[in-house]
Amino acid sequence: MTDKAKKAIVLLSGGLDSTTCLAIAQSEGYHCCGLSFDYGQRHREELDAATRVAEAYGLVDRLVVDMASLGKIGGSSLTTDIPVAHDRPMNEMEEGIPLTYVPARNTVFLSYALAWAEVLPATQIYIGVNALDYSGYPDCRPEYIEAFEKMARLATRLGTEGEVIKINAPLVELTKAQIITRGIELGVDYGLTHSCYSPPAVGVACGRCDACRLRLKGFTEAGLPDPIDYENRPEF
Amino acid sequence: MTDKAKKAIVLLSGGLDSTTCLAIAQSEGYHCCGLSFDYGQRHREELDAATRVAEAYGLVDRLVVDMASLGKIGGSSLTTDIPVAHDRPMNEMEEGIPLTYVPARNTVFLSYALAWAEVLPATQIYIGVNALDYSGYPDCRPEYIEAFEKMARLATRLGTEGEVIKINAPLVELTKAQIITRGIELGVDYGLTHSCYSPPAVGVACGRCDACRLRLKGFTEAGLPDPIDYENRPEF
Repeated sequence: MTDKAKKAIVLLSGGLDSTTCLAIAQSEGYHCCGLSFDYGQRHREELDAATRVAEAYGLVDRLVVDMASLGKIGGSSLTTDIPVAHDRPMNEMEEGIPLTYVPARNTVFLSYALAWAEVLPATQIYIGVNALDYSGYPDCRPEYIEAFEKMARLATRLGTEGEVIKINAPLVELTKAQIITRGIELGVDYGLTHSCYSPPAVGVACGRCDACRLRLKGFTEAGLPDPIDYENRPEF
Repeated sequence: MTDKAKKAIVLLSGGLDSTTCLAIAQSEGYHCCGLSFDYGQRHREELDAATRVAEAYGLVDRLVVDMASLGKIGGSSLTTDIPVAHDRPMNEMEEGIPLTYVPARNTVFLSYALAWAEVLPATQIYIGVNALDYSGYPDCRPEYIEAFEKMARLATRLGTEGEVIKINAPLVELTKAQIITRGIELGVDYGLTHSCYSPPAVGVACGRCDACRLRLKGFTEAGLPDPIDYENRPEF
């Protein structure tokens, strides 16, 4: 294995999925480099969580990319004034493509990862997308990840030099409960992570938004307690 | 043709290629939206040229994305302190992948275009990449453009709704002389454009860098005069 093959970029939002993804990448023997995005999101606690997680995992290489421009482009309740839906009956997830879908977000994120991969260099990129719980997001599907990987190999100096760039999405076919179970096996402290789309206070999750509901449902199904604080903790 | 099909996003750097690309997109009947990038480039005149061109073409929708983060990632003489090579004998172009290659640049640029396309919405994206003159850049090849297009259709809401996203690269197989000839046919004023990698003064091109040499050679081969000012104007 060459030095190039040993480095991995992990997209790190500070959420449950990306933190589990980091734990998996480390367990696979990679020197992990954490890539986070400040895209004008309304829940800035996410970035603080990413920093906590990066410190807990001793990441030496860390890059936070300012993407305020994604907010200028708009089109999502996470970056604009479209309200996050959380006044609906409990257990009722959004159908179709959610309002929280940020246009082409994973494509923009993976593109930055690719740019950084060229420079480090790194041939492995890890992204914690999940096709089951986020089936409404087109850029969370395995066929999307495969298409990005093919493109990435043609797009880069590394690719033209014969290095095989790999986009790893180890959570893509797992349920939230399976992700949590895998993370616990790897010693993940989910108390460090943040998932809520609209936290009512620092360190408190709302318990009402889709992200909170998916998370709580996952812990329930895994038969494990969620260590973070909720303003409202629905039963699943 | 639906309204969606009538809008096109044109990546507009203010250079000769992207300006010609805009003229082609307009001639094909699209309502063009100009997308430019401020990626910490050392030649800020490029952005001024993009603004002049956007105004000349009456673009109503214009977006300038701040990409200082690409500078943080580094790896290119255009965004970092790696010197732009211009002390070599005239007519000697760089071989292999040039120092001015910005890692994964077109992938990052096209990803932002895709995000904007989702919101506008627009199904057409125009990019003035050229495989002949820039053969050293992996992300200027037709096979790269095709791979990005396939990925883009899977990545987006538009794609899942059955809209056909198209990445148009009308210059990809043309020589610089052919690009200039096509532009002149379409009435392009190349006096508005900027190509130089290291301009010695505002409104003056160096005549020494690869971009200047490719441009001057193109005008010579097209049998046309280049209307911009040069500090040094080599013969080709």
